[in-house]
Amino acid sequence: MSVDSYVLLTPGPTPVPPEVAARSAEPILHHRTHEFQEILTSLREELKKIFLTRGEVLIFSASGTGAMESAVVNLHSPGEEVLVYACGVFGRRWAEIAQAFGLSVRLVEEEWGHPCDPARLASELKKSPSVRAVYLTHTETSTGTLCDLKGLTRSVRESAPEALTVADAISGLGGQELRMEEWGLDGVVSASQKGLMNAPGLAFVALSERAWQRTAQARLGRFYWDYRRVRKFLAEQQTPFTPPVSLIVAQHEAVRMLLERGLENIWRENARMAVAVRSAVEKLGLSIFSRCPCDVLTAAVLPDSVDGQRLVRHLREKYRVSIAGGQAALKGKIIRIAHMGYIRRQDLERGIRALAEALSELGWRGSGDQALQVFRELYVG
Amino acid sequence: MSVDSYVLLTPGPTPVPPEVAARSAEPILHHRTHEFQEILTSLREELKKIFLTRGEVLIFSASGTGAMESAVVNLHSPGEEVLVYACGVFGRRWAEIAQAFGLSVRLVEEEWGHPCDPARLASELKKSPSVRAVYLTHTETSTGTLCDLKGLTRSVRESAPEALTVADAISGLGGQELRMEEWGLDGVVSASQKGLMNAPGLAFVALSERAWQRTAQARLGRFYWDYRRVRKFLAEQQTPFTPPVSLIVAQHEAVRMLLERGLENIWRENARMAVAVRSAVEKLGLSIFSRCPCDVLTAAVLPDSVDGQRLVRHLREKYRVSIAGGQAALKGKIIRIAHMGYIRRQDLERGIRALAEALSELGWRGSGDQALQVFRELYVG
Repeated sequence: MSVDSYVLLTPGPTPVPPEVAARSAEPILHHRTHEFQEILTSLREELKKIFLTRGEVLIFSASGTGAMESAVVNLHSPGEEVLVYACGVFGRRWAEIAQAFGLSVRLVEEEWGHPCDPARLASELKKSPSVRAVYLTHTETSTGTLCDLKGLTRSVRESAPEALTVADAISGLGGQELRMEEWGLDGVVSASQKGLMNAPGLAFVALSERAWQRTAQARLGRFYWDYRRVRKFLAEQQTPFTPPVSLIVAQHEAVRMLLERGLENIWRENARMAVAVRSAVEKLGLSIFSRCPCDVLTAAVLPDSVDGQRLVRHLREKYRVSIAGGQAALKGKIIRIAHMGYIRRQDLERGIRALAEALSELGWRGSGDQALQVFRELYVG
Repeated sequence: MSVDSYVLLTPGPTPVPPEVAARSAEPILHHRTHEFQEILTSLREELKKIFLTRGEVLIFSASGTGAMESAVVNLHSPGEEVLVYACGVFGRRWAEIAQAFGLSVRLVEEEWGHPCDPARLASELKKSPSVRAVYLTHTETSTGTLCDLKGLTRSVRESAPEALTVADAISGLGGQELRMEEWGLDGVVSASQKGLMNAPGLAFVALSERAWQRTAQARLGRFYWDYRRVRKFLAEQQTPFTPPVSLIVAQHEAVRMLLERGLENIWRENARMAVAVRSAVEKLGLSIFSRCPCDVLTAAVLPDSVDGQRLVRHLREKYRVSIAGGQAALKGKIIRIAHMGYIRRQDLERGIRALAEALSELGWRGSGDQALQVFRELYVG
């Protein structure tokens, strides 16, 4: 990275390690060669260690939303009832997708910033015992909130045992504890550009055996996303359509690096980064938006006097620090700072320093020195 | 490229120029920054010069098949009748997709190796005057055949004026004449990894105004592919979902290089390469499979005594030359050699030399020296 390159602290895309970027620029391999098949097969095996499942991990040329859509169209027939339990923009997306495909959607929501609650889910499911699936979010990126997927999945198993549990783990996978098989999840979708340290363009899906059985009954129209076709091709180490070979080769390197660090070590380190970032932004006089903050990003509430869109733009233009603002109803009111994947201590230090200066330039006084000091005390990387 | 890297002569993915690969490895930009928006906007404008349309070009994170599916789900309501006119594997794919989404598909086929015929299309349309769209292929990659899209589109306009004409130009766009607006096409889909000299992972779609109107009436379920949402976001230089930023930055460079060479110059050069390659493989004692060969790849029939799958493997393993074999009914019977995008004279020379040697090692005698000589005479690049 050149000196004047951005510090990318957005919750996706996140920075890509130079080793990973270099792999993506290697001469293109044809996808039906032995070399590529070996990489693909190895990547699929290693992704299982990230999803913590023994089941197949499918890889699509798509954004994370594509993987979400793929789950809906592979698991349902027209008119089926599903429950979406949302606490932010991305949770709601499940409902928008299911509605677009003619499912009957029961949308249960928590106030933004609050996590989804296993007890409430259990009681909601008693009112809708026939739902075919429950759609959840692991770390809700729009509010920086962690949902208790383990508890939520248990609620589904106990209160609606026939329903599948499917989670969007696009920003959380690889960054914060998620044990797909042990927790009993039936579907987990994710993408390449957050905790998995790659450029955007790959989407991932893992299913339980129960969910695989459902794909045989599901009658929604599908072709590009058809899991049955993908699995048939994977049995011969192939993909049905031309895969994004350069991104797959790069992902193989990124996953290798992650596993070398160790998944649980990464979870622990992200947790320490999260504590340090939260404390630092509090020292700047901001408050943490979420009641149950996740470890992969921090959403902080701005004072009324500071326009969040202006702050984000100012940080980018003057300090070359890219953070995210709020979405939908939170536009202009919060900022979001990622700490996952390849984001490192020095990136966050530069981000916190720039944030302190930018806030003071926009008329807000918080202590930048104290913020940096508390960050360093809490997170010695 | 290192000395022992592959010569990639497959009809997708094709080689990526080093300048383009280097751009893809640059530090990741956030997609909501001004820098990225400028690149995206410029790319969209330049793609119009490749599609030869004034209409919007939409960009998806997907393979080319995703773009095909997107056209079907955005242009139709359940049960509508469409006509698919196919002359190979990829033409048939239109029918498979349309069937998967519950359309009533009339599949008209030419024998493989023969092109689709405007006169036959006109007479077929007289039997099905109510079809809502006709799906075509520009250069059929499975057989190396060019279809006369200009004539075929005219047939649709004259015989079924209400029907849209939509073409798969995945392997042909940028490589062989295609004038979307002038010829009256309503939809053209393509992808990044063939004539457009980028890695796979981007899919493109352009629509006529008539087709845009159809998207408002179409009732098939869609979310990820929903053109209306994409256009709404593009109006603010945004994309609805995280775009594959590294591939888009690289595509911007590749399209710039193509336009610098000039679209018509590229068409002419590919035509010269095609003539030279066809003559060279004939000198090797093979015959050209297609009755109407396209300029972007050559499909050649192998003698009965040579197993095509073995030949392709042998070329790859011993000579590090990647060409494609036949698909479906043509498996083992033909080989396919691309000459488009960033494939250069020296790549084709190395390919022809290797092919001559590999054929002789598999017991077939053709004159490698004569083949190279005729190639050089016909194509001085």
